Amino acid sequence: MREVAILGIGMTPVDEHWDKSLRDLAAEAVLLALQDAQRESVDALYVGNMLSGLISQQENLGTLIADWAGLRHTEAVKIEAACSSGAAAVRQAVIAVASGFVDSAIAVGVEKMTEAKGTEITAALATAADADYEVAHGVSFVALNALIMQRYMYEYGWQHNHFAPFSINAHHNALSNPYARLQEEIDEQDYAKAKMIAYPINLLDASPTGDGAAAVLIVPKETLHKNGRPIIRIAGSAAATDSIAIHDRKDPLWLKAAEISAQKAYSQAGVEPKDIDFFELHDAFSIMSALSLEACGFAERGNGPRLALDGQITLTGKLPITTMGGLKARGHPVGATGVYQIVEAVLQLRGMAGENQVADAKIGMTQNIGGSGSNIITHILVKE
Amino acid sequence: MREVAILGIGMTPVDEHWDKSLRDLAAEAVLLALQDAQRESVDALYVGNMLSGLISQQENLGTLIADWAGLRHTEAVKIEAACSSGAAAVRQAVIAVASGFVDSAIAVGVEKMTEAKGTEITAALATAADADYEVAHGVSFVALNALIMQRYMYEYGWQHNHFAPFSINAHHNALSNPYARLQEEIDEQDYAKAKMIAYPINLLDASPTGDGAAAVLIVPKETLHKNGRPIIRIAGSAAATDSIAIHDRKDPLWLKAAEISAQKAYSQAGVEPKDIDFFELHDAFSIMSALSLEACGFAERGNGPRLALDGQITLTGKLPITTMGGLKARGHPVGATGVYQIVEAVLQLRGMAGENQVADAKIGMTQNIGGSGSNIITHILVKE
Repeated sequence: MREVAILGIGMTPVDEHWDKSLRDLAAEAVLLALQDAQRESVDALYVGNMLSGLISQQENLGTLIADWAGLRHTEAVKIEAACSSGAAAVRQAVIAVASGFVDSAIAVGVEKMTEAKGTEITAALATAADADYEVAHGVSFVALNALIMQRYMYEYGWQHNHFAPFSINAHHNALSNPYARLQEEIDEQDYAKAKMIAYPINLLDASPTGDGAAAVLIVPKETLHKNGRPIIRIAGSAAATDSIAIHDRKDPLWLKAAEISAQKAYSQAGVEPKDIDFFELHDAFSIMSALSLEACGFAERGNGPRLALDGQITLTGKLPITTMGGLKARGHPVGATGVYQIVEAVLQLRGMAGENQVADAKIGMTQNIGGSGSNIITHILVKE
Repeated sequence: MREVAILGIGMTPVDEHWDKSLRDLAAEAVLLALQDAQRESVDALYVGNMLSGLISQQENLGTLIADWAGLRHTEAVKIEAACSSGAAAVRQAVIAVASGFVDSAIAVGVEKMTEAKGTEITAALATAADADYEVAHGVSFVALNALIMQRYMYEYGWQHNHFAPFSINAHHNALSNPYARLQEEIDEQDYAKAKMIAYPINLLDASPTGDGAAAVLIVPKETLHKNGRPIIRIAGSAAATDSIAIHDRKDPLWLKAAEISAQKAYSQAGVEPKDIDFFELHDAFSIMSALSLEACGFAERGNGPRLALDGQITLTGKLPITTMGGLKARGHPVGATGVYQIVEAVLQLRGMAGENQVADAKIGMTQNIGGSGSNIITHILVKE
């Protein structure tokens, strides 16, 4: 199996892009990644997207994006794994280049959400849950996460305000990220007073949706030479699933799929949690940050919020997370999010994260979560 | 890159399965493939499906099927490439096993269509075309194919009845296939009198939709030993795209993506068209059979129908096609079709095709077409 590296990255701001269609956004990210890599073509295109069929009445998205980005005739498919579609597309690109079937591949994550009504979005996002045994009862996606958070607080004795540092940190980091959807500082009072969505999840526990696209261009590492820019190797790439319905899990407070995929990625990369310099985790809801930290070995079971309360998750802490604003403030264009995480990790490892730079960042980890913890993909990137 | 082989196959009949849900059908095919391979688990699951979001309000299909088939925690994603989603899933499984990232993978194609109204299906299938520049004008998928067929007849001087042998052959072969949707013989008069859908495409030019699932289990060839059953190696696997909209093609009568993917597959397998013993092509509409034969080098440009008129496409002809009934009569559960083609090819190569057996079948080819020729995937299977 060949080692692979990321040669090019590209992204659009996460925003309400009223003037750009789904294909425009995706093509923009693809072309930026090609430009960054100084390439004009690739052998394969993997499009991460969840909602284009439901919201834009457009499937066959691989073909469409290849065509629109000037890559006509290039092999292309869409990869869907709910909110982890982006990282799933990256993983397929990694596998394809590692296999030798192709010598270069672009993974682009794209989502176009603001043209649809809020109720349509809520219904479309609910397709990530079990249609027959969860959604049929009227539960929405935020409600499923609220059930988990409520149980977590009950089991481990945390209060709602103990989760505030996750959101405050994310918003603070987004302030200096020009690609972020929400560039506004928040404090504990804002957090406490925010409107309730589904108890105990309020507006500042939840990430905003948005339009956006991000892309990475992957090549065999052996073809690269250091010429001014470090080589960013994908040292770990792993995925795992769990039951799609939360009620089928023995322990709904443990992200088994996060644990499995993280352990596989650690093993592939030959590292341990203590070696990770920063972690782009999937803070779709603040409870997910706590659960992800625990399942990946950064905190003891039930102790995820402690890391945040102790200030360890900031840019100068022991384990900086959501360094460019995370889903909470950079925004969560669902099928694109997993690629944004990896693009941001590359910026950190290249030393190009500006005011958000994590000092001496050499090993970065990303984790993209689909469904309510049901499809989780972990990547570890190493600067060489 | 490791060579890969198909160790297990499974499928459900293509039918109106009112008593089985999407997940039931997929799990049935997966379990049959596991049973056939005498395995209890796999490392990865690739689900080929086009319409689950639109018709069943269910995404996150990889997770759902892994969960329902008893493969909880297994890595799983959905692959979408319109009507070539099935072969696209097989190709991802091939790449994953070839790469060494996983040591076994199942590709399952599944579609559940009969619960939706006909108009919903027509709208859902149209998402394979360009939503903004084709579908916005009111054109349906059959209408796009009718435009191609009409132009083809005009350019090359064929009459409608010259396409009859494609449908007659497919229906004849389906008679002895218990998994086929339409087990009824048709003749030239039936073909000529069939109801018109979109001129010149009538009901007997078009394939029926349906519910169904098919699965293949793929492993490294090096792990297999001949013990009674031949080894079925995947010697060629290639994909290519074209413009999503027909009006963007220089020559709408030439399937460039079929040509590219077939040439790549021939090259990988070290074979030529004359070496192919049978060809499971994508006869969604009879015009597509003609175009596929031409683009893959089996007929001269504009001469696809000649092969059929000369009787060369029957089970005893020079190039048997749609040996188990093809899309036309086995049925076309869109995201599953590409996997059915490969399962049927394995049956032929194992010598288990019963009354439909192609004598001395050693090299089989399959081609799955997504959109109006916009996403095409070719596989070549060799018996060893």
